[in-house]
Amino acid sequence: MSLLIVGSVAYDGIETPFGEVDRILGGSATYISLTSSYLTNHINLVGVVGKDFSEEDIDIFRSRSINLDGLQRDESGNTFFWKGKYHFDLNKRDTLDTQLNVFERFNPVIPENYRDARFIALGNIEPSLQEKVLDQVDNPRFVVMDTMNFWIERTLDALKKTLQRVHLLVINDSEARELAHEPNLIKAAEKIMDMGPRALIIKKGEHGALLFTENEIFSAPAYPVIDIFDPTGAGDSFMGGMLGWLAYTDDITPQNLRRSVIIGSVMASFCVEEFGPGRLTNLSEKEIYDRYREFRELSEIPEIS
Amino acid sequence: MSLLIVGSVAYDGIETPFGEVDRILGGSATYISLTSSYLTNHINLVGVVGKDFSEEDIDIFRSRSINLDGLQRDESGNTFFWKGKYHFDLNKRDTLDTQLNVFERFNPVIPENYRDARFIALGNIEPSLQEKVLDQVDNPRFVVMDTMNFWIERTLDALKKTLQRVHLLVINDSEARELAHEPNLIKAAEKIMDMGPRALIIKKGEHGALLFTENEIFSAPAYPVIDIFDPTGAGDSFMGGMLGWLAYTDDITPQNLRRSVIIGSVMASFCVEEFGPGRLTNLSEKEIYDRYREFRELSEIPEIS
Repeated sequence: MSLLIVGSVAYDGIETPFGEVDRILGGSATYISLTSSYLTNHINLVGVVGKDFSEEDIDIFRSRSINLDGLQRDESGNTFFWKGKYHFDLNKRDTLDTQLNVFERFNPVIPENYRDARFIALGNIEPSLQEKVLDQVDNPRFVVMDTMNFWIERTLDALKKTLQRVHLLVINDSEARELAHEPNLIKAAEKIMDMGPRALIIKKGEHGALLFTENEIFSAPAYPVIDIFDPTGAGDSFMGGMLGWLAYTDDITPQNLRRSVIIGSVMASFCVEEFGPGRLTNLSEKEIYDRYREFRELSEIPEIS
Repeated sequence: MSLLIVGSVAYDGIETPFGEVDRILGGSATYISLTSSYLTNHINLVGVVGKDFSEEDIDIFRSRSINLDGLQRDESGNTFFWKGKYHFDLNKRDTLDTQLNVFERFNPVIPENYRDARFIALGNIEPSLQEKVLDQVDNPRFVVMDTMNFWIERTLDALKKTLQRVHLLVINDSEARELAHEPNLIKAAEKIMDMGPRALIIKKGEHGALLFTENEIFSAPAYPVIDIFDPTGAGDSFMGGMLGWLAYTDDITPQNLRRSVIIGSVMASFCVEEFGPGRLTNLSEKEIYDRYREFRELSEIPEIS
């Protein structure tokens, strides 16, 4: 099934305790499309880059057969740039610089040949833009969106409006608590699902993720990564792996959503092993499925006879 | 197999957002013995109470067939008293009052008929007292100990000495990070196992628990409790359920340690449903095993065909 991905394409500057890079390919649409490309074909990216965007970085998408008909090039400015620095324990980061550049005027236009997309990933962009995407597509089977504290705090009404049109929301635990005004995650999940989405994933970083569907909860473990090199893009890689799997199998049953959460976790665990999207350009199918099996072993509860 | 439990027997005053009690039975040995009593027989408790300890509370232990030959009564003072207040989200608590009373002079004496205990639970008491217990027992098969930040900060040498004589250490995530001087839990676990214990459980509260054995890691989910009434005793209930299961099955393979972690999680999830040990006096075997199955369903990762 075809997968439409809308989000940011960016350059990131990253400092971690293990090194730094001045400028490396980044952005939510980048991570989502690279990771999903290992699972399914017909990946269509919608985003915007500036006049400084390099041919080498275009080639990274091309090498993964990602369709770039929807990638606008705005010659009036530079590509969105973000710079951040991670703390010693990698769980916290400070933003050192944000230059929206051409992203500030981003107006997602969905090319004609993308409008019948069955699966849609709405990366973390302004909720009104996410809704604009949905206005341009025909009859998607499954829409997944990401958001962040920034939008919860500043554009809550628009966010709630968009939420009514998506099937699955993916957010992290602090965002879930903030959106629901509720410290207990299980109660927060109930409140958020009352806002529209019929499924919800709460990402908990080193503690794994929770998937809520109508009648059940699935608790996914985190991969025990010893050497996290750079956490940038882990959340988007999760979303890409998950959606890639759903689009590939065209199956949105709770059982298969569980599988998609683990595939997402697998891709996130690879993402953090190198700076930027480095590890996401050379994965093998065997590595992906081997790690899936590791997740199964990690959390297997033996029966009691 | 017989199970020897050494720890505190106390009265607790508890304030939560849902109510308060002035004085209710508490203490690590109390919670460990009550929970393990649902899983195995021959439970032998060693602790101390003061002149104020009531016959009704003695009856609670008796009703669960817990052997009290090792429960000293010190008429020179009152029972250990602790009072705490939980914050709105129940993850944090402030200690409002601590009266050690007779517990300050506690000298664990293991009765002759307990010395051949095969399984030993060393509740959270001073490390040198934990070691004193081990000096008095014959040849235990499996020794499990708990500890806390207080001992890590004040009696680290004694703690490390005791650690060399135990098979399994059970601590929470912040304690593990502090003991190992390492923010990454997986690395922290490696460092702690180098200190002696050949197995380690790191409890993560609402995020479940991690079990480390020689060659594998097991990630256990937390039960999605919506209405946590009172978290007091949850960690000790975990330890009691776990040890009760191990003593009952007399099986310390990694597979069975996984089961014990889930049984422990089951008992902790019951513990928090009522004030103090209230819920731990009226459980049925069916409730326990039903909840075990719920844990299995909660974390089941379907195969990929």
